[in-house]
Amino acid sequence: MTDFFKGIPAVKFEGADSTNEFAFRHYNPDQVLLGKPMKDHLRFAVAWWHSFAWPGGDPFGGQTFDRPWFGDSIAHAKLKADVAFEMFDILGAPFFCFHDADIRPEGATFAESKRNLEEIVDYIGEKITGSKTRLLWGTANLFSHRRFMSGAATNPDPDVFAWSAATVKSCMDATLKLGGQNYVLWGGREGYETLLNTNLGLEAEHAGRFLQMVVDYKYKIGFKGAILIEPKPQEPSKHQYDYDVATVYGFLKRFGLEKEVQVNIEQGHAILAGHSFEHEIALATSLGIFGSIDMNRNDYQSGWDTDQFPNNHAEKALAFYEILRAGGYTTGGTNFDAKVRRQSLDPADLILAHVGGMDTCARALKSAAAMLEGGELEAARRARYAGWEAPAAQAMLKSDLAAISADVLARGIDPQPVSGKQERLENLWNRYI
Amino acid sequence: MTDFFKGIPAVKFEGADSTNEFAFRHYNPDQVLLGKPMKDHLRFAVAWWHSFAWPGGDPFGGQTFDRPWFGDSIAHAKLKADVAFEMFDILGAPFFCFHDADIRPEGATFAESKRNLEEIVDYIGEKITGSKTRLLWGTANLFSHRRFMSGAATNPDPDVFAWSAATVKSCMDATLKLGGQNYVLWGGREGYETLLNTNLGLEAEHAGRFLQMVVDYKYKIGFKGAILIEPKPQEPSKHQYDYDVATVYGFLKRFGLEKEVQVNIEQGHAILAGHSFEHEIALATSLGIFGSIDMNRNDYQSGWDTDQFPNNHAEKALAFYEILRAGGYTTGGTNFDAKVRRQSLDPADLILAHVGGMDTCARALKSAAAMLEGGELEAARRARYAGWEAPAAQAMLKSDLAAISADVLARGIDPQPVSGKQERLENLWNRYI
Amino acid sequence: MTDFFKGIPAVKFEGADSTNEFAFRHYNPDQVLLGKPMKDHLRFAVAWWHSFAWPGGDPFGGQTFDRPWFGDSIAHAKLKADVAFEMFDILGAPFFCFHDADIRPEGATFAESKRNLEEIVDYIGEKITGSKTRLLWGTANLFSHRRFMSGAATNPDPDVFAWSAATVKSCMDATLKLGGQNYVLWGGREGYETLLNTNLGLEAEHAGRFLQMVVDYKYKIGFKGAILIEPKPQEPSKHQYDYDVATVYGFLKRFGLEKEVQVNIEQGHAILAGHSFEHEIALATSLGIFGSIDMNRNDYQSGWDTDQFPNNHAEKALAFYEILRAGGYTTGGTNFDAKVRRQSLDPADLILAHVGGMDTCARALKSAAAMLEGGELEAARRARYAGWEAPAAQAMLKSDLAAISADVLARGIDPQPVSGKQERLENLWNRYI
Amino acid sequence: MTDFFKGIPAVKFEGADSTNEFAFRHYNPDQVLLGKPMKDHLRFAVAWWHSFAWPGGDPFGGQTFDRPWFGDSIAHAKLKADVAFEMFDILGAPFFCFHDADIRPEGATFAESKRNLEEIVDYIGEKITGSKTRLLWGTANLFSHRRFMSGAATNPDPDVFAWSAATVKSCMDATLKLGGQNYVLWGGREGYETLLNTNLGLEAEHAGRFLQMVVDYKYKIGFKGAILIEPKPQEPSKHQYDYDVATVYGFLKRFGLEKEVQVNIEQGHAILAGHSFEHEIALATSLGIFGSIDMNRNDYQSGWDTDQFPNNHAEKALAFYEILRAGGYTTGGTNFDAKVRRQSLDPADLILAHVGGMDTCARALKSAAAMLEGGELEAARRARYAGWEAPAAQAMLKSDLAAISADVLARGIDPQPVSGKQERLENLWNRYI
Repeated sequence: MTDFFKGIPAVKFEGADSTNEFAFRHYNPDQVLLGKPMKDHLRFAVAWWHSFAWPGGDPFGGQTFDRPWFGDSIAHAKLKADVAFEMFDILGAPFFCFHDADIRPEGATFAESKRNLEEIVDYIGEKITGSKTRLLWGTANLFSHRRFMSGAATNPDPDVFAWSAATVKSCMDATLKLGGQNYVLWGGREGYETLLNTNLGLEAEHAGRFLQMVVDYKYKIGFKGAILIEPKPQEPSKHQYDYDVATVYGFLKRFGLEKEVQVNIEQGHAILAGHSFEHEIALATSLGIFGSIDMNRNDYQSGWDTDQFPNNHAEKALAFYEILRAGGYTTGGTNFDAKVRRQSLDPADLILAHVGGMDTCARALKSAAAMLEGGELEAARRARYAGWEAPAAQAMLKSDLAAISADVLARGIDPQPVSGKQERLENLWNRYI
Repeated sequence: MTDFFKGIPAVKFEGADSTNEFAFRHYNPDQVLLGKPMKDHLRFAVAWWHSFAWPGGDPFGGQTFDRPWFGDSIAHAKLKADVAFEMFDILGAPFFCFHDADIRPEGATFAESKRNLEEIVDYIGEKITGSKTRLLWGTANLFSHRRFMSGAATNPDPDVFAWSAATVKSCMDATLKLGGQNYVLWGGREGYETLLNTNLGLEAEHAGRFLQMVVDYKYKIGFKGAILIEPKPQEPSKHQYDYDVATVYGFLKRFGLEKEVQVNIEQGHAILAGHSFEHEIALATSLGIFGSIDMNRNDYQSGWDTDQFPNNHAEKALAFYEILRAGGYTTGGTNFDAKVRRQSLDPADLILAHVGGMDTCARALKSAAAMLEGGELEAARRARYAGWEAPAAQAMLKSDLAAISADVLARGIDPQPVSGKQERLENLWNRYI
Repeated sequence: MTDFFKGIPAVKFEGADSTNEFAFRHYNPDQVLLGKPMKDHLRFAVAWWHSFAWPGGDPFGGQTFDRPWFGDSIAHAKLKADVAFEMFDILGAPFFCFHDADIRPEGATFAESKRNLEEIVDYIGEKITGSKTRLLWGTANLFSHRRFMSGAATNPDPDVFAWSAATVKSCMDATLKLGGQNYVLWGGREGYETLLNTNLGLEAEHAGRFLQMVVDYKYKIGFKGAILIEPKPQEPSKHQYDYDVATVYGFLKRFGLEKEVQVNIEQGHAILAGHSFEHEIALATSLGIFGSIDMNRNDYQSGWDTDQFPNNHAEKALAFYEILRAGGYTTGGTNFDAKVRRQSLDPADLILAHVGGMDTCARALKSAAAMLEGGELEAARRARYAGWEAPAAQAMLKSDLAAISADVLARGIDPQPVSGKQERLENLWNRYI
Repeated sequence: MTDFFKGIPAVKFEGADSTNEFAFRHYNPDQVLLGKPMKDHLRFAVAWWHSFAWPGGDPFGGQTFDRPWFGDSIAHAKLKADVAFEMFDILGAPFFCFHDADIRPEGATFAESKRNLEEIVDYIGEKITGSKTRLLWGTANLFSHRRFMSGAATNPDPDVFAWSAATVKSCMDATLKLGGQNYVLWGGREGYETLLNTNLGLEAEHAGRFLQMVVDYKYKIGFKGAILIEPKPQEPSKHQYDYDVATVYGFLKRFGLEKEVQVNIEQGHAILAGHSFEHEIALATSLGIFGSIDMNRNDYQSGWDTDQFPNNHAEKALAFYEILRAGGYTTGGTNFDAKVRRQSLDPADLILAHVGGMDTCARALKSAAAMLEGGELEAARRARYAGWEAPAAQAMLKSDLAAISADVLARGIDPQPVSGKQERLENLWNRYI
């Protein structure tokens, strides 16, 4: 046991009236909703990068956090893993997620980085064995090192493509070894700073080919989890190719991968792309490519990714409603891609931020489940489109413009608008929040 | 001859030093660039709606313009057409564009609206015959009337789908009759105000089926032009389905229409979607779905579509560069989807706004053509990606993750970043502006 | 009695478990919080313009609503007033607000408009007498008519300044006569479309002088209410002079009016200016110029004023907390500057939108009051700044740079950062929501 | 001489047709415009931080630049200064700007940092003596170190206020010693992350008192330059107190400092605050608080400060027009607060970015000067407001609402709107670009 979280108790459910900071007021893991325990609905994961690797810097200031594991040695990396699993235990977190760069020291060469990763993966594997926490997904950091500054799979230099491919192989191997349920790709440098020096067409082809290789490798090694792409519109790039769910869908269709790859949707990224979080989820479920979510919140007045912990259950309920409506997660989960503010220096801040986030999600889930059980909203939606169930309407869809025009003239129709009842439905929604 | 533009002379090219407000300083229609006259590169079109149908209202105020043709009769519509062609003559505009609602009075029934349209189409057909101006594209207004408030092709009411289909048939017939070179669909109401009352999946299927009918009808009537979708992310809707070029591409792929339908890209819509105009054009050309553009400018600090005339040639040169690089327009053109400000009350304002817009585009085109002829930018781009021409790089693309990883280990590579030279390329660009 | 709201019952408080659409679940007018009934905390007002005068148009479509009072006659205006008071009764709304243009038909001349206003004011005065609803504030519509297209007080034409001044006089007289508690100015056209034709300095001087006249007239007629400016950054203008609270404060200081004029803050306008709603309220209270609020919500992904009804109590609680912390309203109130969506055609939609808005606010108020009573948040805030209570700290503030520098050197200080505890405070906050 | 810029020649003016990358095509320092050499109009400055101290990191990646002077010793700092002055010579840059943290290594204590600063200031002083480059302004970095994470002048900890005050004293001393013409304050941490832990009122009072101390100290030491505040709305903070020009004006008025302090306006900050750059300049000149500019450009589609070099002269001409119209700079200048992209690794990139920026500004200045000399725009502006020159209009301004109302009734006026001629003025403008 390290003493990093010394004095902080394991967090338990105490109910909505508890005033204990270190208790859940809504997240009751074994409470059954819609026939399934809450923990299996939510499948919470802690993100290694934000909680353990981020030093607290921002574009105008450097490190604010003082962590005993900050350093470049294997020993530091192991200490970091020790603390991480202590936090997972305190929170009762069922899952975690990582990038290679979060868990192992960068080596002087690719080979050394690979060995470092393997050593730490073994170490983490042992910790998993002695813990209730599992791996939700692994991923490769193909954006922080300067070698990736002009892209990873889309780099003008084929050697960077090679490096990236080899790195993804290592990370997929690690994910498989650690029993991960998904493998994620976020292309932070797959985009451009200026069109002037960019070959859009060639870069797209390379990105498509790279993704195909990832899918092929999944089958080769017998990885049973899902491959997920995480959309984001920009930042750090001026334009990121995986802009949003609709863009990723078009990309997958182009390369024939829409059955093989799903999306990992982040609230902050949705916002940056001009969408609500629930829109991105609803679109992905309607297209059959919904996989998992990165739960956080972006400040609505900030034009960059703030990765804050969610704290508005009323808002998040809309997201969980879309997830539940589509049947819930399969391999996916609720990963807190969120970081404490750089002024939140205390170990307790790390714990409490997650407690608040988990409670916000649990409360949102309860509302969403109740709403779905109540059924009024879905009934209203079905009623609105009921006209399409008529045989004549279905026949029209199989018809053509000329026939429809003749029919419109013959019937002399004058369709009258009908109230969309938005405010009533919002009131209904509020009953469940 | 009406006297609306009384005293305003035909606008001619006088060269960059002219101080005559009613002269072109850059648009010299017959000047040859890259082997083609400027007019055939630019293919300017005037938009009937903004110039002749818009009363000057905004969300906080009503009509400001005083036009003798404002009114609901056929006579008003003919007067409007007379003035339109007078303006086309003054400008030497090679093309125009229209919605049905711009040119004909709304009838009390569908049949009456159809007859009104046919009568006005005949009238405009005669005017075309006596003029040098041709039809770039026609389209149907499926958004202004209250019957479309909840969508046209995606309306919950099948009768509105029917009405919309019948209307598009009429407008395609009109476009064919008037010799139009394209037919455009902008889905201003194809989207939603709230997810709470929306069936995303069903609406997408209906939209896909509707578009297939449009394509089928094109072949049925022998229309040789292109079918174009105009993307826009939102406004008036909270979310519009044809969000941006990438979204439309995914939609076309989903319904197998990516060879049949292209995009009509608008600067203001690109901006609202978080993209630069040149990005949207470059993406469309790289995907093989570029069709035409709606030229205008949005205010960068306004969050709605301002549809102003372009007045910054340096900026627009980036757009024309992408068009020229891809080989220029085929059936497409440069439609001024732009309106004079609601305070610009004078007939001369209408003329001068177009003169300024045409000159801005012509100047931008000259820069873009010179840059392409100069070749330095394309040479720099090719050089940046030259590594991919090596046989080993091409072989790697056909390889797999495991083989690449082995190769990376074997070669012990350490790829070094290379300057992206953005500022140098921007300076180079400035030499041509 | 008109039959517009036929069949809709008076809305009463039934408690959180009620499933009656036409009941309040949170707004219990006489429930006492912090020593005052809820109705006196909230002081709800209905806005005449959105509920009774707006036809449902948007920039891409016209009227959707079918109201028997739409028309230009005095009889129409009286019918509108009849329905308005019926709605006030149904809702138990304690206040309403109006512009002149909402309640009277526009006349052919200024004199006729004035007479029309006087006639309707008499009519409304009688209705107030027989009702429990009072006037929160009146205002003049100096933006819809084309004469105001280039500004009202800041118009280049002195006659428009005159017209505007005369109109404000009429509206202040009307507000006084109807017992209004505030008079509001929103300068929708006081700004510019382009700097190229604008004299910023002159327009600011005219705006300052105009406001001074308004203040003078208040005293002249013995109006006891507050004069309020409503900030908005833009839309319809490219730039509006009363951009946000901070800008209005600078304007008031410049003209020596900061003791005479307060602000009426709108959520949607705050958002458009890049601020949170609670920021604008907190800033105004800290500057001593807080007056009233226009309650609504803007869609966070839309770049224009959507004026929707609030429906997220968790979010609005932050606003009410700032109001309560500063002591609550004096003459101000919670005006619903919100409109049902243009697809919400039914009379019931109008009622239910207000019910939902009132309940959202009531629920937010209860959270805010409980939080203030709980006191933990204020205690944490005080503790954070406690260092400033030390005599040495206060002495330093009266000192100078050289003395402080000497002291820093002498004491050899090395100030260490302390956690800002943001997530803990957010969790605390969530306990009350 | 270091060999960092080895092989790069001094940059000279060669005229618009030059294809020499290392030549000015527009910046001809001694060319006279409006009676003054171009160099005295533009007063270009190089920013030490972006060009010499920034390692190329962004929120998702670390250092990309490889500079021999990166390191923490005095020797590194001197090498950095050597290279800086070599760059100033190559560019013929008349000015530079710095923060303390850019030029000296951070010490272990305040005293050591102070000594380091003094040593480097002496070193730089000698370099200035042997150079043609002068100091435009100095400033203190009160945002990067973790001690400032919760503010500098507005920190909850009085010791941080003290540290900040002492640091500003050192930096003002340094600026005076180096002959600086201005002293700048940018409050990157003077703002908040969350209102929940913030005492807005107290922080404002401390900020006001701090600024008064700065002004007092200026007089005490006989510094003749201007004190400048640099507005920015947010980033890194959620809200920065010096939001924009209007906000700073209100702050200055509140503390009676509007005659003592001016603003340093940055294009990127203006954009983030929702304003055009020219708006902020025009507003500052109209309020009498214009001081200097930070020239750069923000990407219009990115929601954070991109600090790119300007490369669109047409756009920047609007900014220089406002500066020239107000009489030009006094102590201010054109500081390139701009950084090469993190992919621009080569020493030549640093030079060429400045060459491009200087040429863009010079070209913009020439357009602006010609436009001002041409006089058409100012004539049109005067004509638009000519009505206000009438004695009756001036009398009305001294009148009151009642008298004006009586006059409106008596005269029976019906003011008619007049075209604002925006597009014509934009065309006119284009003639000069």
